[in-house]
Amino acid sequence: MKEKSFQDHYPESYSHCYGCGSLNKEGHQIKSYWDGDESVARFQPQEYHTAFPGYVYGGLIASIIDCHGTGTASAAAYREEGRPMGSEPPCRYVTASLHVDYLLPTPLGPILELRGQVVEIKGKKTIVEIQVYAEGKITAKGRVIAVRIPEYLIA
Amino acid sequence: MKEKSFQDHYPESYSHCYGCGSLNKEGHQIKSYWDGDESVARFQPQEYHTAFPGYVYGGLIASIIDCHGTGTASAAAYREEGRPMGSEPPCRYVTASLHVDYLLPTPLGPILELRGQVVEIKGKKTIVEIQVYAEGKITAKGRVIAVRIPEYLIA
Repeated sequence: MKEKSFQDHYPESYSHCYGCGSLNKEGHQIKSYWDGDESVARFQPQEYHTAFPGYVYGGLIASIIDCHGTGTASAAAYREEGRPMGSEPPCRYVTASLHVDYLLPTPLGPILELRGQVVEIKGKKTIVEIQVYAEGKITAKGRVIAVRIPEYLIA
Repeated sequence: MKEKSFQDHYPESYSHCYGCGSLNKEGHQIKSYWDGDESVARFQPQEYHTAFPGYVYGGLIASIIDCHGTGTASAAAYREEGRPMGSEPPCRYVTASLHVDYLLPTPLGPILELRGQVVEIKGKKTIVEIQVYAEGKITAKGRVIAVRIPEYLIA
């Protein structure tokens, strides 16, 4: 049986995100998983996700960092609380701030790999650092400050 | 005659960007203009650009900040050099870093307005600060560090 991604555990009412919602047919449908203490997501950009010909659009890189970051924050919250993802109450995060450093042009074609590390959990705030790899090289680094959505707002 | 946007002056070979390329039919086609010393762009998110139902996806907000930032950097370079946009040699920028603070949920529906200010031009580096407005309120703030592409790389 295929392992369920972090995003596949989101409540249905919170699964419409353009970046990672499993119910958003137009969207990117990012899927994130644990790989030991790191979170990992793989993503295939489309040919129209261009910056300059041959390179991936920076806004797409920011987008997938964003969703991998909030997904990792969510998974880390369940892990901290010692209960399985998807159990009640749901742990869902929004982005308070997003920072991306573009280190190298990201080639358009190969599947991108995002690797995330939870660097801080403090109350409702979780900080996740993320590296984007293309063909084994880090082309961008991101930092997501994610904030937990109060339970009463999650239908 | 309708005023040409910053992006409409980009060389054709650099007009494929998913965020702002006039030749990218799948993309956002952001258009930026001067409004006095500020740059302005207006953008209508689509209904599938959702974060949670009723709100705009943060990755889209990051994307339009990114392109409005590099566009503003380009226009500011022409202005600094005292020559019209689109004149040779072309001034085109890439993003070195992108920072976005999400201050409020951005309602999905109204046209968003982005307003940019050039806060620093130093050699090849230009810093642009951007506010995103929805219904008159600032919902996000961005900061783009843009770097000029060497002329010999622009076909």
